[in-house]
Amino acid sequence: MHILIVNPNTTVSMTEKAAKAAHAVAGHGTKIIAATSKSGPASIEGHYDGAIAVPGLLLEIREGQAAGVDAAIIACFDDTGLEAARMLADIPVVGLCESAVMTAALLSQRFTVVTTLERSRVLIEDLVRRRYGMGDRAKVRAADIPVLELEDKASGALLKLKRQIELALEDDGAEAIVLGCAGMADLAQSLQREYRVPVVDGVSAAVKQAEALVAQGLTTSKRGSYASPLAKAYAGSMSAFAPASA
Amino acid sequence: MHILIVNPNTTVSMTEKAAKAAHAVAGHGTKIIAATSKSGPASIEGHYDGAIAVPGLLLEIREGQAAGVDAAIIACFDDTGLEAARMLADIPVVGLCESAVMTAALLSQRFTVVTTLERSRVLIEDLVRRRYGMGDRAKVRAADIPVLELEDKASGALLKLKRQIELALEDDGAEAIVLGCAGMADLAQSLQREYRVPVVDGVSAAVKQAEALVAQGLTTSKRGSYASPLAKAYAGSMSAFAPASA
Amino acid sequence: MHILIVNPNTTVSMTEKAAKAAHAVAGHGTKIIAATSKSGPASIEGHYDGAIAVPGLLLEIREGQAAGVDAAIIACFDDTGLEAARMLADIPVVGLCESAVMTAALLSQRFTVVTTLERSRVLIEDLVRRRYGMGDRAKVRAADIPVLELEDKASGALLKLKRQIELALEDDGAEAIVLGCAGMADLAQSLQREYRVPVVDGVSAAVKQAEALVAQGLTTSKRGSYASPLAKAYAGSMSAFAPASA
Amino acid sequence: MHILIVNPNTTVSMTEKAAKAAHAVAGHGTKIIAATSKSGPASIEGHYDGAIAVPGLLLEIREGQAAGVDAAIIACFDDTGLEAARMLADIPVVGLCESAVMTAALLSQRFTVVTTLERSRVLIEDLVRRRYGMGDRAKVRAADIPVLELEDKASGALLKLKRQIELALEDDGAEAIVLGCAGMADLAQSLQREYRVPVVDGVSAAVKQAEALVAQGLTTSKRGSYASPLAKAYAGSMSAFAPASA
Amino acid sequence: MHILIVNPNTTVSMTEKAAKAAHAVAGHGTKIIAATSKSGPASIEGHYDGAIAVPGLLLEIREGQAAGVDAAIIACFDDTGLEAARMLADIPVVGLCESAVMTAALLSQRFTVVTTLERSRVLIEDLVRRRYGMGDRAKVRAADIPVLELEDKASGALLKLKRQIELALEDDGAEAIVLGCAGMADLAQSLQREYRVPVVDGVSAAVKQAEALVAQGLTTSKRGSYASPLAKAYAGSMSAFAPASA
Amino acid sequence: MHILIVNPNTTVSMTEKAAKAAHAVAGHGTKIIAATSKSGPASIEGHYDGAIAVPGLLLEIREGQAAGVDAAIIACFDDTGLEAARMLADIPVVGLCESAVMTAALLSQRFTVVTTLERSRVLIEDLVRRRYGMGDRAKVRAADIPVLELEDKASGALLKLKRQIELALEDDGAEAIVLGCAGMADLAQSLQREYRVPVVDGVSAAVKQAEALVAQGLTTSKRGSYASPLAKAYAGSMSAFAPASA
Repeated sequence: MHILIVNPNTTVSMTEKAAKAAHAVAGHGTKIIAATSKSGPASIEGHYDGAIAVPGLLLEIREGQAAGVDAAIIACFDDTGLEAARMLADIPVVGLCESAVMTAALLSQRFTVVTTLERSRVLIEDLVRRRYGMGDRAKVRAADIPVLELEDKASGALLKLKRQIELALEDDGAEAIVLGCAGMADLAQSLQREYRVPVVDGVSAAVKQAEALVAQGLTTSKRGSYASPLAKAYAGSMSAFAPASA
Repeated sequence: MHILIVNPNTTVSMTEKAAKAAHAVAGHGTKIIAATSKSGPASIEGHYDGAIAVPGLLLEIREGQAAGVDAAIIACFDDTGLEAARMLADIPVVGLCESAVMTAALLSQRFTVVTTLERSRVLIEDLVRRRYGMGDRAKVRAADIPVLELEDKASGALLKLKRQIELALEDDGAEAIVLGCAGMADLAQSLQREYRVPVVDGVSAAVKQAEALVAQGLTTSKRGSYASPLAKAYAGSMSAFAPASA
Repeated sequence: MHILIVNPNTTVSMTEKAAKAAHAVAGHGTKIIAATSKSGPASIEGHYDGAIAVPGLLLEIREGQAAGVDAAIIACFDDTGLEAARMLADIPVVGLCESAVMTAALLSQRFTVVTTLERSRVLIEDLVRRRYGMGDRAKVRAADIPVLELEDKASGALLKLKRQIELALEDDGAEAIVLGCAGMADLAQSLQREYRVPVVDGVSAAVKQAEALVAQGLTTSKRGSYASPLAKAYAGSMSAFAPASA
Repeated sequence: MHILIVNPNTTVSMTEKAAKAAHAVAGHGTKIIAATSKSGPASIEGHYDGAIAVPGLLLEIREGQAAGVDAAIIACFDDTGLEAARMLADIPVVGLCESAVMTAALLSQRFTVVTTLERSRVLIEDLVRRRYGMGDRAKVRAADIPVLELEDKASGALLKLKRQIELALEDDGAEAIVLGCAGMADLAQSLQREYRVPVVDGVSAAVKQAEALVAQGLTTSKRGSYASPLAKAYAGSMSAFAPASA
Repeated sequence: MHILIVNPNTTVSMTEKAAKAAHAVAGHGTKIIAATSKSGPASIEGHYDGAIAVPGLLLEIREGQAAGVDAAIIACFDDTGLEAARMLADIPVVGLCESAVMTAALLSQRFTVVTTLERSRVLIEDLVRRRYGMGDRAKVRAADIPVLELEDKASGALLKLKRQIELALEDDGAEAIVLGCAGMADLAQSLQREYRVPVVDGVSAAVKQAEALVAQGLTTSKRGSYASPLAKAYAGSMSAFAPASA
Repeated sequence: MHILIVNPNTTVSMTEKAAKAAHAVAGHGTKIIAATSKSGPASIEGHYDGAIAVPGLLLEIREGQAAGVDAAIIACFDDTGLEAARMLADIPVVGLCESAVMTAALLSQRFTVVTTLERSRVLIEDLVRRRYGMGDRAKVRAADIPVLELEDKASGALLKLKRQIELALEDDGAEAIVLGCAGMADLAQSLQREYRVPVVDGVSAAVKQAEALVAQGLTTSKRGSYASPLAKAYAGSMSAFAPASA
């Protein structure tokens, strides 16, 4: 099967890191196709960046679907544009945050997500605790790391991240850790070895969820919330987004 | 004070209807400035339409703020782009759904929102019950009316809407009704007279919330969730959205 | 329009402070009428004081309504007697806590209410997190200040209050602050300037909500929870409270 | 031990009915002392009646405590004044609704409360589902019976009540029934025999909870929410309610 | 009446301690019959021990019922096997955790459960906050005490327990304490005297709940969740557990 | 990899059906090893059957782990013994209900689980809505089918099941269906074709979750809730269950 992984920000090094993590867990016969959005912010830090990233993301998913991919992954831990993409696509679309949260919930009763900045922390806390139903089971911490610092080995980002993992284990009663940014995908294995608790990376988790859906012959419901967009006029610079049947 | 009301879809007749409702409740000294998005869908029916509408919406808010408006309203009951707009703007930004829900909660213990299509119903149910914390206090019904039918007097939309209001009063124990689409703004008063329960229109509610915030000297917090977007590169067709300081 | 603001405790200096805050935000054409309860406790600290204050409060609202006011505000942050008053009145009645919480929720995703004593803190926490649906979005802190100390500039109350605001910003991730006692109404503006986050005062918030309801032609639903009291005998010292139609 | 059961409405026949139910379940050595409030409404139907009933109720509890009773019961299913009474009293105070709900929760996973009027239904639904934490486990139905009709054998009230019990068993998946009004205390046993599911009466449940607390040497915490009222002036017709130490 | 109290672990000294606590609160005419499970772990620390303890526990309850007891108590704070026992038995069956939590909720708005080990803490937190609906009202702390250390006066367990009680009072805002292990039943009274807040022991609470149900003529509903097990074959070493009618 | 799928009831035809469904979705290189419990009930219908099934289930998991399997699945939709198995095992253990619920949540915003009997329905409703956090997103229906009727083509079970699916689509707003019994695993594909919504089978979903965890190098956390059982004596017929290190 072919799985498209779209980086909704425009930083190619992050796409490559995610693609590498995806390849590492992909099953026999799975081909990973990585794409980088061609328009939008260089990193997604909060709702504004996320909203502006969505159109570029949707174009990649539409193209991927046209090219025949079997499933798509949105490679941003904020699950930016996930609902819109599910309306657009006939193939399954999965997010990093929801996939990682589900995975952690199979391994532990209490876990902590460690993300980058406070503005992302609140957004992710709402996703994890409210939308994905984890409530008291999950806490979310910010390590005070701008996303692009994760691309710079010399930035000290790893130390900040480890500090929050240690606080999660000591103070939160965390039984597992979820890395709350696609840019942390390369760190999961070494952190898991170091702290001897499960460390879940969203990219890896999402690849396996996408494969799982395809293998089961399941795809997004087209009844109700995710029914295909209705035919209608789209004006101005967004005219290319008009649903196909319009 | 100047209040900008942005219609995030591109249908001018809906902007005009909302503007009329806004004028009707605006306080002494409030000037309503109505704007229609220049790009995006003709109506917003579900997450996909909503996501594509956001950039055009944000441009109107940015322009309005540059022109000195004191507050902005997003005139779509899905509260599309509300979080992103709050990061962008230094002025208060309010949504129709949250304003209407708060208003209904001051008048009743149980109320029902009546919206257009099932795809919008689920989205709004999540907003009302989960995000805005109404839980069991609120139900949401769809009247099976495409948004643009509301612009057509001969469409039978009013009859469908009234049928759902009657079911809400009979079966849901609704003590008040919230009209769940900006395109219903012209119907609130006559429905309130007919059914003798409070009927809340989101446009009117949002105007009063915007005025209230300005009068109290309050604006969106710039600490945490809604901190201003960080300076960074924005690529491709979205380059114009790069935060001002970038 | 005429808005009645009732102080349900019997301390006139608190009424005056609330009236002053109310005047400061009242819209053009709004006349604020302040009343102090004639029976009950000098301050409301917990459920017992609150319960005893209700009859005196209801009398003021009944008189105000007879005199033709358009809306009423209960000027105690515990929202004492709010449900009873809504049954009694045909005009809208709003509370400080619910108004302030709604206002803060339009400005921030996470906020902290700072109130006076622990006994009030728990009561308000239940209002804010459970009744008004804020859940994880809001925390409530007590500054260990008896209510009447707020009337005494030399009491050190301001320092205690500021200490809790600082803890809220540092430890709670608060993006906005709500002042959790009507007796703090005079402090909001200077605290907002000092801490550069929105500081919401319940009296001001309630005035704007009352005005908003009147402007929209909305009043408390008389269907269900808030239906007018049924005609029946009231015995003993409470005979004056028998519903009018009895 | 001596247990005071206070009817917070002024209808003596309801006090007698409650006292009879209390006697029937009281343990060896328990003496039931029934009191009827001397001021307030003849029946409690919604928040307004409830609020006006509280002062008269509190006087009875204060007198009972002075006379040396070991625990007090508030014999109204709305748990009117329960929080205030717990602040006032050093002895345990229990409510009918909370006692009945706890009892039903020991016997079933899903149960339905059947109460009198819609205005009471919403109030009780909030108590049961939110305050007492039953959430989805409990539903609340109104049989459309004014409280005092329960005192009139010829009123048809029993038939209306039975209709709702049948709907609860058929449509709600109820595994047990709770009678949601003190005035139904005489009906529990025959209904239990007829429908062969547990039928819980609040008066009986409350007597056993009060006995249980006394037997365990437990009383209301005086730390936090229920700390004794602080000494302060009480003005006007409420001066007699000033806390003892004032 | 006869109340069977079953210790689902196989440590006789714990049975004796529980029996002693039960006797101390039992009403006039109540006979306590204590039984120790004949198969399973010496102490129950987490889900595995709990699951293995259930068959032995169920045998004791079945025998007790055959011998004519009126109610049964499962003397482990994890409420191990409670649901299964309720299906099996026609008599009421109560658990320690649910009884203690209900009791504490009658005395305080906020309370803390102090249990033994972290693995039990999470299990009990899920029971208390989710299953028994206490949500934010209750916190759960672990004192890091293996269960059998409670049987050893020289173990230092009491000091660890007291440290957590002190933290609960200082940091959690606890108004009452619940002892979260049957093995702590002998400590409640002295701790209550020392800390001057209610200290609830689950064994005592459960005895009074069991008595209360019997006195009211109530027993587990046989409709829905707790309907008697259906007749069917049980294979292998579990053949003795086949429902009687099989 | 080797995945053990344990049927915790003793009916071999159900094991075979589950194994067949597992094989159908297993990835390249995955070997499915099916085992049937040797002791316990022929079907699991409610808490009692479930509790008695656990020891036999745990023995199969312990043996499988000793034989070197990489992950285990508990093939009962009640997720019987899942928590205990996770403490016992060092390999990942997944349940049908949690796997199916997660899968449906990736495909739809609202879904309905259709299970067998009312006694299982309530149990599963608590799992789905409370434990797995789906709240309002999921409903659970019982088709009134004893489990073993699913093994009998002539029983009419399929018609009953289809009736509930149709009600779910019409009345619940279900966007996807989850089959709530391992014995329905053979029906998913034809039902999905017939109703044109995703139909999720728990066995298939669990196989993919187990594979996903193994591929990611993740296993159950041994910190906190699922820490290995502590060494201690196990008495009587359960002595074989004593933790290995005892």
